[in-house]
Amino acid sequence: MAVYTEVDDAALEALVAEYDLGRLLSCKGIAEGVENSNFLLVTEAGPHILTLYEKRVKAEDLPFFLGLMQHLAARGFICPTPIAGRDGRALRHVAGRPAAIISFLRGVWPRRPTAVHCAGVGAAMADLHRCATDFGLRRANDLSLAGWGNLLRSCQSQADAFSPGLSAELTRELEALQAAWPDPAALPRGVIHADMFPDNVFFLENRLSGVIDFYFACNDMLAYDLAVALNAWCFERDGAFNVTKGRALLEAYVRSRPLTVAERDALPLLARGAALRFLLTRLYDWLNQVPGAMVKPKDPTEYLQKMRFHREVANAAGYGLEYAP
Amino acid sequence: MAVYTEVDDAALEALVAEYDLGRLLSCKGIAEGVENSNFLLVTEAGPHILTLYEKRVKAEDLPFFLGLMQHLAARGFICPTPIAGRDGRALRHVAGRPAAIISFLRGVWPRRPTAVHCAGVGAAMADLHRCATDFGLRRANDLSLAGWGNLLRSCQSQADAFSPGLSAELTRELEALQAAWPDPAALPRGVIHADMFPDNVFFLENRLSGVIDFYFACNDMLAYDLAVALNAWCFERDGAFNVTKGRALLEAYVRSRPLTVAERDALPLLARGAALRFLLTRLYDWLNQVPGAMVKPKDPTEYLQKMRFHREVANAAGYGLEYAP
Repeated sequence: MAVYTEVDDAALEALVAEYDLGRLLSCKGIAEGVENSNFLLVTEAGPHILTLYEKRVKAEDLPFFLGLMQHLAARGFICPTPIAGRDGRALRHVAGRPAAIISFLRGVWPRRPTAVHCAGVGAAMADLHRCATDFGLRRANDLSLAGWGNLLRSCQSQADAFSPGLSAELTRELEALQAAWPDPAALPRGVIHADMFPDNVFFLENRLSGVIDFYFACNDMLAYDLAVALNAWCFERDGAFNVTKGRALLEAYVRSRPLTVAERDALPLLARGAALRFLLTRLYDWLNQVPGAMVKPKDPTEYLQKMRFHREVANAAGYGLEYAP
Repeated sequence: MAVYTEVDDAALEALVAEYDLGRLLSCKGIAEGVENSNFLLVTEAGPHILTLYEKRVKAEDLPFFLGLMQHLAARGFICPTPIAGRDGRALRHVAGRPAAIISFLRGVWPRRPTAVHCAGVGAAMADLHRCATDFGLRRANDLSLAGWGNLLRSCQSQADAFSPGLSAELTRELEALQAAWPDPAALPRGVIHADMFPDNVFFLENRLSGVIDFYFACNDMLAYDLAVALNAWCFERDGAFNVTKGRALLEAYVRSRPLTVAERDALPLLARGAALRFLLTRLYDWLNQVPGAMVKPKDPTEYLQKMRFHREVANAAGYGLEYAP
């Protein structure tokens, strides 16, 4: 949860006056998301989200993120759409930060994901990958293999204090992934969401009603997005992988975009990599807590267990996907 | 800011089904308020606030708080109104906590209050005092003189570590207030808000659009409510009292309910008491921070300076109120 930046009521009224949204009626900080400051902004035109981009989002990436949302929404993918002011621009500055007013999406994120939710996520992810094929901008995944090495180096000296033996295990894991990571040309690539966790997917009565938070989106292997989602959606709270949920997610995906044999075989490796990525960012946040900060860091241990699980999986069948005859 | 309690999406849908509000469309935690968990709940009937009452609010006080809001709203005072479910009840349980769905109030609280805002607050406070005169329930002010003694005792041993000499100053101040505090019969009494801070008063384009957060409301001297508001609205960020704001607030109040001479004379004493009350609760919260808690405690020092200021004020004229000829 996070609201980092206060917005003056006078600044708010001035902002809203730059749009065709009628008068400002209400603005409340939202206790969701940890990267940006989000506000529920109600005007005579209805509810919208006002996002102030804090320092973890690079200003030079914003045209990619906002452009992607506009591109996807124009193709019928349900995601927040940046609203243009009367000057035609969606991106502007509020309280010294880049900011945008974004359309409000109906739905509630599932606190206890079921197989039905997982199927919804798989189908939506395939839609996203398909709708983004003709998006013109590119953004490298700065939290892929090279980024993990940097993160590991910055955590290494404190890792064993967090959990004895962790430093050596992370080093071995990173080396194994570096040796085996797929060649850029080996697997289909495109724009991925890269952070499709339950709190970024909304549902209404079990029907997926939208996907939010594109601020990690980038160009990478499409199957890596599935690997992130398997980690985020298909483990139970006790750490066990739920193969029914895995099957639901993967089968819904392959109905729209069949996986190549190379993708099916690479899935455990990609899932290990995705687990390492979230383990490292959580470990970094855990070790670098700001005293008095309003964001409670998430426990890295959860992703250590997931990473270990994936080491024992042979291919996508281990996640429940039945190979077509 | 606070969202303490997570509400399950299934529990939410079950809750909304108990009301005539149509289907659930969205629910987001609000990063405002520190006592309760608040959510912006959007249904087909529009936006509402879902409040889960956390441990600082006593369950036995809820009929007073909810009843007061219903009473005031029925008399045209603009405040949130508890919504009754189809069974006629407004108070129910969600996630193991007492909970209520409350009407959504338009407006934005002023980040930089002006004299215009202060005049709005003075007028609204007089309206509140008037509308509440025939409210049938009673609630003692547990954060008045006796409560301050308890708070001081629980902070005393650590007060000097926070600020050298603070323990003795607080003891002297409490003793002075105990010696001089008005007799219950000496000043007009009634239901007061007791926490009318800027973040509890909404405005739309400089017009007051509503008052929220009645969870400190109680029966006490009406002028004590003014004393709380003078502290909360009329000091500048550098600690100086702004007599223009004080005058605006008090004159707007007395246009609806003139102050007795005893009230005018007691105002500095009541303002010292109100400053001590917020100084003590802030000091208590400061000294009892929960590591990793999502609420950032407010600096007690601000109220120490205010308390010292009020000691030098002779009567309401010191706050800008001109005595009628």
